[in-house]
Amino acid sequence: MYYETFCQMKKLLGQMDRWLATAATTAKEKSFDPNLFLGFRLAPDQFAFARQVQTACDTAKLASSRLTGKEAPKHADTEQTLDELRARVQSVISYLDGFTAKDFEGAATATVTQPRWEGKTMTGADYFLEHALPNFFFHLTTVYAILRHNGVAIGKRDYLGALTQQPPAATPAK
Amino acid sequence: MYYETFCQMKKLLGQMDRWLATAATTAKEKSFDPNLFLGFRLAPDQFAFARQVQTACDTAKLASSRLTGKEAPKHADTEQTLDELRARVQSVISYLDGFTAKDFEGAATATVTQPRWEGKTMTGADYFLEHALPNFFFHLTTVYAILRHNGVAIGKRDYLGALTQQPPAATPAK
Repeated sequence: MYYETFCQMKKLLGQMDRWLATAATTAKEKSFDPNLFLGFRLAPDQFAFARQVQTACDTAKLASSRLTGKEAPKHADTEQTLDELRARVQSVISYLDGFTAKDFEGAATATVTQPRWEGKTMTGADYFLEHALPNFFFHLTTVYAILRHNGVAIGKRDYLGALTQQPPAATPAK
Repeated sequence: MYYETFCQMKKLLGQMDRWLATAATTAKEKSFDPNLFLGFRLAPDQFAFARQVQTACDTAKLASSRLTGKEAPKHADTEQTLDELRARVQSVISYLDGFTAKDFEGAATATVTQPRWEGKTMTGADYFLEHALPNFFFHLTTVYAILRHNGVAIGKRDYLGALTQQPPAATPAK
C-alpha cells in the first residue's frame, strides 16, 4: 500500500497547487500582493505559510526517497512568490510520477534515519506510519487552514479532490 | 496495512485527548472558561472546534466500521464541554481497541457508501485512501491548528507522539 499512498499524496499535492492558484485570484480580487501569503501563519511560533508548503513537499519527496533509495531532487528553500511555490509543488509531483509499485517492495524493512535523530533509526514501516504520513497531512492541512483563515474561497471538495465512485446500481424495471 | 493505520489513528486520537487537557490548563492559567474553545473556528464558514473533534472521531469510527462490518457506537453530538469531548475521544479509542488485523481482511474489496452519496459507492481500498485517511488527518490537524491559534502550548511532538526508534549502533572499540 506504500505506492498507492504516495499516489494519493501526489494527488493531494495537485489539489494544493490549485489552492495556491485560488489564493492568487483572491489577492487579485481584493487588490493585495499575492505573495503576502508566504509570511502568514496561525501562531507566532509556528512555521509561516511558505515553509508549510515546502515541508509538505519535502515530506512526500524525502519519504519516498528514503523508502526506495531513489535520489530526490534538491530544493534550496528560496521561494519568494506563490508562483515559485507552485513550481516546487510541480517538481515534487514530477518526482513522484517516476515511481512504480516495484520501487517500494523493500520499503517496510528499510532502515530510515535523518540527521536530527542523532544516529537513531526507524524501520520503513514505522517511519511511514508514525512520521511520514502524519507529517505530510499536518503540513498539507495547515497550508489549507492558513488560506481559509485569510478568506481564500476553497472548501472541503478542493481538499479531497475527485473521488473514485461507482454509479448507483440500476433499479430493476417494474 | 489497514489495521496498522487504524492503530496509528488510535494513537493520534490519544494525542488529541492530551491537547484537550492542555487547552483546559491554558484556560485555567489565563482565567477564561475552557469551554469557550468549543465555539472557536479559523473561518466563519468552517466547522467550529467541537465539530472538528467530533468529525475526527467519527471518521476513525465510521471508517473502521464500514471496512469491517462491525457496528459502531452511536454519539449524539451533544457535547458542551472539553471534558465531554474528551469522553467522546476515549469512547472511540475503546472502540478501536476492539479490532484485530483479522477484522480488516476483506477491507480492500468491501463496498462502501454513505447517505450523502445518493447511492454511489466506493471500494474499500479507494474509500480508505481517498476519503477516510485525508478526512481523519484534516479534522485532527484543524483541531490542533485552532488550539495553536488560540495560544495553547502544544507543539509538533504533541502532534506526532512517541516514535518507535532504535538506538544508534554501538561504535566499535578502538
